[in-house]
Amino acid sequence: MNSKYKISKLKKGKLETVEDLISIEEPLEISLKYRNKENWLTQSLSITMRTPGDDEDLVRGFLFNEQIIQNIEDIENIKSFGEKVGQYNIQNKILVTLNNSKNVNISKIKRDFLTNSSCGVCGKSSIDALEIIKNEKTPKSKPKLSKDIIIKSPSILRKEQSEFAKTGGIHASGLFSSNGNLISLREDVGRHNALDKMIGDSLLNNYFQPNDQFITCSGRLNFELVQKVLMTNIGFMIGVGAPTSLAIDLANKFDMTLIGFVKEDSFNIYTNNQKVIVN
Amino acid sequence: MNSKYKISKLKKGKLETVEDLISIEEPLEISLKYRNKENWLTQSLSITMRTPGDDEDLVRGFLFNEQIIQNIEDIENIKSFGEKVGQYNIQNKILVTLNNSKNVNISKIKRDFLTNSSCGVCGKSSIDALEIIKNEKTPKSKPKLSKDIIIKSPSILRKEQSEFAKTGGIHASGLFSSNGNLISLREDVGRHNALDKMIGDSLLNNYFQPNDQFITCSGRLNFELVQKVLMTNIGFMIGVGAPTSLAIDLANKFDMTLIGFVKEDSFNIYTNNQKVIVN
Repeated sequence: MNSKYKISKLKKGKLETVEDLISIEEPLEISLKYRNKENWLTQSLSITMRTPGDDEDLVRGFLFNEQIIQNIEDIENIKSFGEKVGQYNIQNKILVTLNNSKNVNISKIKRDFLTNSSCGVCGKSSIDALEIIKNEKTPKSKPKLSKDIIIKSPSILRKEQSEFAKTGGIHASGLFSSNGNLISLREDVGRHNALDKMIGDSLLNNYFQPNDQFITCSGRLNFELVQKVLMTNIGFMIGVGAPTSLAIDLANKFDMTLIGFVKEDSFNIYTNNQKVIVN
Repeated sequence: MNSKYKISKLKKGKLETVEDLISIEEPLEISLKYRNKENWLTQSLSITMRTPGDDEDLVRGFLFNEQIIQNIEDIENIKSFGEKVGQYNIQNKILVTLNNSKNVNISKIKRDFLTNSSCGVCGKSSIDALEIIKNEKTPKSKPKLSKDIIIKSPSILRKEQSEFAKTGGIHASGLFSSNGNLISLREDVGRHNALDKMIGDSLLNNYFQPNDQFITCSGRLNFELVQKVLMTNIGFMIGVGAPTSLAIDLANKFDMTLIGFVKEDSFNIYTNNQKVIVN
């Protein structure tokens, strides 16, 4: 979702007034309705700055990646509500009703959970809580990819992004099959939101087949992005930019292959080394 | 701060094992000690994923930008503490003691304030709280800059970054005088941390002279980055990448000049148009 803005552009020493397309950033307040013993409780869970569109996917992916739900079936329904506000006339509030499943992690909700899209560790009140909550689900999938597919995946992502060509200012995450076919793609000004949206879409449509898939993200790779991908059990992740130390350490710990700095004829393999590449 | 990692590099079709420098990402837990009537209270305020180094500047800038303090004098002292942990053997906890000043905004602290570096709206529990808290301090400064200085500032930033050349994966924020001299520069894997650190350093050293300064940030410009710069009363901000709609709207509201997409011979002026450019 984007909007036209009148801007001044300097080019070849001259200033001219032109129309430019700008990616929209708006707050989304996520509230949760869930059953605690005999009572239904509603509480505000999180505010995230997101690009409007695919809000339901964002919420699905977010709840799954934060381990509040284990399956998409734990969600009873999702509804945008409230007044349409702002110049883009959109609803910025969304309510997720969880069903009565035992899979719903109420203790995680009840902790005063104020968080946002760009930090998976937010809402946890001490460093000890940073310990990865993912215990059993070590990614076992290790698809072998050709060099060619690794190099091409970021450009496929860029080409298929509906918004990037227009605005030049939006992140994307894509789910690929190991033969290089794009299965799901989502965009957002926040790279963490783009990944939550793509994971939410893939959960809903039952796309995940970890043994034969990989995930590619625009931008740099940090701790939180790797953590979200770990939740899918997919063991192969590609980023266009550089990873941080924690991104590499986390990938190493869970035996995930991490690739970054993908250029036209080069890339870096940060973990698992040559074992996973063919050709 | 960076660390050596052994990686595999594909180049010209061949894989080779090389040593690579990676930017470090580690959690920092910020706690606050403050006086509430007769009692001293201590509470955990925030966990942010940051690149270790200049932690005190980060905390100074963060408290100022979140409007918990109004002046650097409101801070009594800042101390890193706790065990040295992890492979880099660093302290990841920091305690800020505020003095008894009337400027300390206790109501803001007492609200259950769980937040992180990459979201200025985090810790606020409804969309209504997004309303900019900055009322009086409209930036009145409007330095006139030459096109040349605007175009050069990102490359000055990059050249002066100690970490970027090594790792290729770290953001920077710089305070410049209007004649193009770099006054303060700070780096971090999180662009919001880089800006907090630079603002913290500039507050401590009394660098700010808004009438004659501008701020340049690597990467894209969002709502939160603009909000932090607004706190400095500097009315001229440059970003290397694209702004979001909210970044532009916020700059417009406070009469700030916002420039983005700076290339070798071009840039975009999103607000205030030609009025602020000379030559």
